[in-house]
Amino acid sequence: MAPGATEADIERVVSLVETAGGDAFVSRGVERTIIGLVGDVQQFGSLNLRSLNGVSDVIRISAPYKLVSRENHPERSIVRVGGVPVGPGTMTLIAGPCAVETPEQTLAAAEMARAAGATLLRGGAFKPRTSPYAFQGLGETGLKILADVREETGMPIVTEVVDAADVELVASYADMLQIGTRNAQNFALLQAAGEAGKPVLLKRGMSGTIEEWLMAAEYIAQRGNLDIVLCERGIRTFEKATRNTLDISAVPVAQRMSHLPVIVDPSHSGGHRDLVLPLTRAAIAVGADGVIIDVHPHPETALCDGPQALVDGDLRELAKVVRTLPPLVDRVLTAAPEAVPA
Amino acid sequence: MAPGATEADIERVVSLVETAGGDAFVSRGVERTIIGLVGDVQQFGSLNLRSLNGVSDVIRISAPYKLVSRENHPERSIVRVGGVPVGPGTMTLIAGPCAVETPEQTLAAAEMARAAGATLLRGGAFKPRTSPYAFQGLGETGLKILADVREETGMPIVTEVVDAADVELVASYADMLQIGTRNAQNFALLQAAGEAGKPVLLKRGMSGTIEEWLMAAEYIAQRGNLDIVLCERGIRTFEKATRNTLDISAVPVAQRMSHLPVIVDPSHSGGHRDLVLPLTRAAIAVGADGVIIDVHPHPETALCDGPQALVDGDLRELAKVVRTLPPLVDRVLTAAPEAVPA
Amino acid sequence: MAPGATEADIERVVSLVETAGGDAFVSRGVERTIIGLVGDVQQFGSLNLRSLNGVSDVIRISAPYKLVSRENHPERSIVRVGGVPVGPGTMTLIAGPCAVETPEQTLAAAEMARAAGATLLRGGAFKPRTSPYAFQGLGETGLKILADVREETGMPIVTEVVDAADVELVASYADMLQIGTRNAQNFALLQAAGEAGKPVLLKRGMSGTIEEWLMAAEYIAQRGNLDIVLCERGIRTFEKATRNTLDISAVPVAQRMSHLPVIVDPSHSGGHRDLVLPLTRAAIAVGADGVIIDVHPHPETALCDGPQALVDGDLRELAKVVRTLPPLVDRVLTAAPEAVPA
Amino acid sequence: MAPGATEADIERVVSLVETAGGDAFVSRGVERTIIGLVGDVQQFGSLNLRSLNGVSDVIRISAPYKLVSRENHPERSIVRVGGVPVGPGTMTLIAGPCAVETPEQTLAAAEMARAAGATLLRGGAFKPRTSPYAFQGLGETGLKILADVREETGMPIVTEVVDAADVELVASYADMLQIGTRNAQNFALLQAAGEAGKPVLLKRGMSGTIEEWLMAAEYIAQRGNLDIVLCERGIRTFEKATRNTLDISAVPVAQRMSHLPVIVDPSHSGGHRDLVLPLTRAAIAVGADGVIIDVHPHPETALCDGPQALVDGDLRELAKVVRTLPPLVDRVLTAAPEAVPA
Repeated sequence: MAPGATEADIERVVSLVETAGGDAFVSRGVERTIIGLVGDVQQFGSLNLRSLNGVSDVIRISAPYKLVSRENHPERSIVRVGGVPVGPGTMTLIAGPCAVETPEQTLAAAEMARAAGATLLRGGAFKPRTSPYAFQGLGETGLKILADVREETGMPIVTEVVDAADVELVASYADMLQIGTRNAQNFALLQAAGEAGKPVLLKRGMSGTIEEWLMAAEYIAQRGNLDIVLCERGIRTFEKATRNTLDISAVPVAQRMSHLPVIVDPSHSGGHRDLVLPLTRAAIAVGADGVIIDVHPHPETALCDGPQALVDGDLRELAKVVRTLPPLVDRVLTAAPEAVPA
Repeated sequence: MAPGATEADIERVVSLVETAGGDAFVSRGVERTIIGLVGDVQQFGSLNLRSLNGVSDVIRISAPYKLVSRENHPERSIVRVGGVPVGPGTMTLIAGPCAVETPEQTLAAAEMARAAGATLLRGGAFKPRTSPYAFQGLGETGLKILADVREETGMPIVTEVVDAADVELVASYADMLQIGTRNAQNFALLQAAGEAGKPVLLKRGMSGTIEEWLMAAEYIAQRGNLDIVLCERGIRTFEKATRNTLDISAVPVAQRMSHLPVIVDPSHSGGHRDLVLPLTRAAIAVGADGVIIDVHPHPETALCDGPQALVDGDLRELAKVVRTLPPLVDRVLTAAPEAVPA
Repeated sequence: MAPGATEADIERVVSLVETAGGDAFVSRGVERTIIGLVGDVQQFGSLNLRSLNGVSDVIRISAPYKLVSRENHPERSIVRVGGVPVGPGTMTLIAGPCAVETPEQTLAAAEMARAAGATLLRGGAFKPRTSPYAFQGLGETGLKILADVREETGMPIVTEVVDAADVELVASYADMLQIGTRNAQNFALLQAAGEAGKPVLLKRGMSGTIEEWLMAAEYIAQRGNLDIVLCERGIRTFEKATRNTLDISAVPVAQRMSHLPVIVDPSHSGGHRDLVLPLTRAAIAVGADGVIIDVHPHPETALCDGPQALVDGDLRELAKVVRTLPPLVDRVLTAAPEAVPA
Repeated sequence: MAPGATEADIERVVSLVETAGGDAFVSRGVERTIIGLVGDVQQFGSLNLRSLNGVSDVIRISAPYKLVSRENHPERSIVRVGGVPVGPGTMTLIAGPCAVETPEQTLAAAEMARAAGATLLRGGAFKPRTSPYAFQGLGETGLKILADVREETGMPIVTEVVDAADVELVASYADMLQIGTRNAQNFALLQAAGEAGKPVLLKRGMSGTIEEWLMAAEYIAQRGNLDIVLCERGIRTFEKATRNTLDISAVPVAQRMSHLPVIVDPSHSGGHRDLVLPLTRAAIAVGADGVIIDVHPHPETALCDGPQALVDGDLRELAKVVRTLPPLVDRVLTAAPEAVPA
């Protein structure tokens, strides 16, 4: 309560809280009175306590998300994507081209990915681009290419969906739906993804707090889908030397707040090829459950994000990193599913 | 070019640019060589110059948006919403409840708005909420209430749309479609709004640069709709004393970069009732083409953003501000359209 | 307390708080217990409650500053600088060159400033520059030039001090000491300024919260000097179109939290000449107690911040703005002190 | 140049640049003309090109720092602190209490540090505190305690200096001077540290860009001292779950831009004990030349930053991390100088 709050102001808060089924504990000091509320936060939200006379501020203590919270689910979860586990104990490498361009490019990238140790193939058929004049992806043609490459390599595929109306189509091809940073609060898309019956890779909003990221995951979970993997991909700050600022602390913090697996995207956060390997090492060392990396057979002609795609020479180093570093944090590189589909 | 770039590196850049139909002018210094490119930026984009040997950085000089740029359209535009002009020479007040709750509440809020000088009614039927457990709006029922209140008051209505799939429905009721800050890069929604045949109020992304905001407007414009009003609503910073940080400079900057009208939302940027009037005065004084304000007959029971809604007492002050301040910046408060529809 | 806190954990917190002379009120919920502390916050600080078992978080409710807080001093203060008042009821224009270069340039700028309505002259003799290779100011020579120009124009002078060791020297010439954004947490300098016997103009740190700004003011106040004027000068954000982002809301917020006057620097926040007048209008309209503006007779040869200095043509418009806008917010432009020293 | 720039505008720029001893290369396009400048950037700075007619923007291509730049010094430097090397090939652990409180606490902390593998002892005698009411450090008494503990343990000491006037005193006790984040642009202090004859540990400003950090280092270097170690300690962002956001990418980026060693402070960036070990692992894995960590024998009674100090149980884990991780990035933990005083 504000310093000048009257006894009647205090009474009104207590009475409103009790009417809403909660308990209000009043702590009176010389200058200020603090009222501790206990009960269902959702109900308190509709009381608009902040607009009452004498109220200085309302501070939430407990988490506003339930299904994805670790409070109610202390054991960390493992999400399976086409048979590949993502979660505690393992470190999963997801790699592939930023955008699917041709069958040849996609297959070549998949083979580069697999050689480096990847067990999941990433590749975009629907691309959200800042400019309407930039390449927007091949759409369903791209999905078919991905499905063909899965057939050939046995790698389950992760691909982005950018519109709720496309979720059913994308889910019919993909093993995992990716929701990108620009759609981190596209609630219609989150809800549709929650009903699609496929695991979801949820990137953090580029200016989203960790709490908002978990609230976005809650939108998916609330529709019955708890197979969600969180992906830290860098946040927007004043620093201009990197495309985004990788918030490496977000990995242990999100793992403490939620039971969901948390992976890192070192390609989009740094935006430079030179940063991909150092940030991959940092991600594994901090305890990420996986990393997702851009690779491209010919980055100099890539239609999307060429400057950050790893090329052949780097891949041997990547292969070494993903094999040697995980054991130091009590993890092993996730192995490919045993049977490759014919 | 990087300090160590070779003659061959320079040649390769020049030759690629020329192949793409552009011109490359080489400026050689003691330590560095700079290559100035002239031609179509979109074509250069696909060259991936940044990934070539010897290239240190690529810096864009000209604007990546065309249709909304003021470079090609020096005169500032006026957008008409149900007959009400928004643009240079006038200052338009848009007001109403954050969320449509009941016919009575909406009508009462509209009458408050009109009494303060508003000529457009705002009100949300589809609400994007951070929490899936928060009130999400009345949907089509809310749109019908708005249409009834328009009938009664003659005020054209501005209302938000949050999913591309709802654009047609919302456009069938609304005079202006609002796209909120969380959807500032929901490109499917922007494109759908560009085809809906109604003016669009485009809020800036909460962490979006002014350039990204104009790129989002370009997505709408590219689908044939140039009736776009930009709305500054505060950006995310480290400051915690306000909900967002109103970027007041964005008004003159966006007006210089684009011919589109620019208005300000002082309610959502500050997040406190006490800040709405000071920020409204600042917005008018800086040269905004309008302001959009939350009003509610009973903010203490509002289902959404009660703490920032103006109440009766403040409205007289608001009415005074919107009448006395615009003439000092060579503007007049927009008058209501003459004939109120029967 | 964290969800798993034990009864013993709670007891330990209560007992520590009571030992420190405070009261602890325990509110027990189904999932969580909240303990409200009442007493002297400084004492609680040394208890390190956050590191105790079972403690989830410690949230401060009351303000950590006392002398500059409005809680204990509800009436807003007026600070007098060489006889010129800064505070409620008036709007004071401070203007002059960013850096003192020559007697002629300084006098010409002072006359420009006075013609526009300024009653205080700003001008830098000690310049904090990001680069060690940039012009660092004339030092004491510059102070003497300022004193001569004061003699000639009757305008009291405001000038920056950048090192605690220079405070005595600068205070022997200046009517007001300015502490710049880069020194907003240079506590040795703040303390020295608090003992210098001259009013202080305290700029907000470029990434400082409003609370930190008031804590910096508290450092000055604690040494016996309450003649402090706060100056908002833009904060650092991700937006690149402006040099800094003017946090216009900081004016009413700081005026509500503190009794000290609050002015705005529209020159350094925008960084472009075109933005100075719109931002000056916004600052006056939002309720600032003054504005501080760069003027220069020949900005194209200025040694510091030429691109943002107002030139002759703009000054007539500035003169009009500072006379017509303040009455709309119940203020008058501060008049020059009556007697001009011979 | 702006789209409407005239031939005369272009001529004027070219002629000014040539007068200043530079070369100007003009690239003319259909809509725009670009002028590439080659020569001494410091001279161009004083031309104020940005304020000329027809000039749209001036973009610097080459780095504004020289002495600390890697361009002119491709080999990465090793800085020796009391015989202990910090730089490529090694990973140096610096540890100790945030603040020196008593001889016993300092010695106990030093022994904890040494047991974990630390070869340098940190400890604050002069503490910059946001609040004037917080513990400000023991001053010279603290320095003497540090010197005694160095005598006993053989560990060279790193301690902060907060005022240019104290540099000589602190340098008479310390092996390395630390300049904190709040003084990252306290140029008087940087210059004094540059003349003190001791290595300097320079923390990044909490809202400073990497370029500004290197400019601050340049201030020190320019006074003849190149024994500078850069320390990333987290930057200020909108995220509230951590005290600061550790910018892990800053390590490889600063190492590419400068030849100076770069270390990480995982204690102050995270602000929580739980984050110290994960962030230490990330720092080593990304390639940091060292880490600096808070340890305290009794964090629950620490006078400063207790919540982030490591305690006994964590130290065994820390000891393991600093021994096993560096070899994976081709480094070894720095060993103690050979002769330990008895």
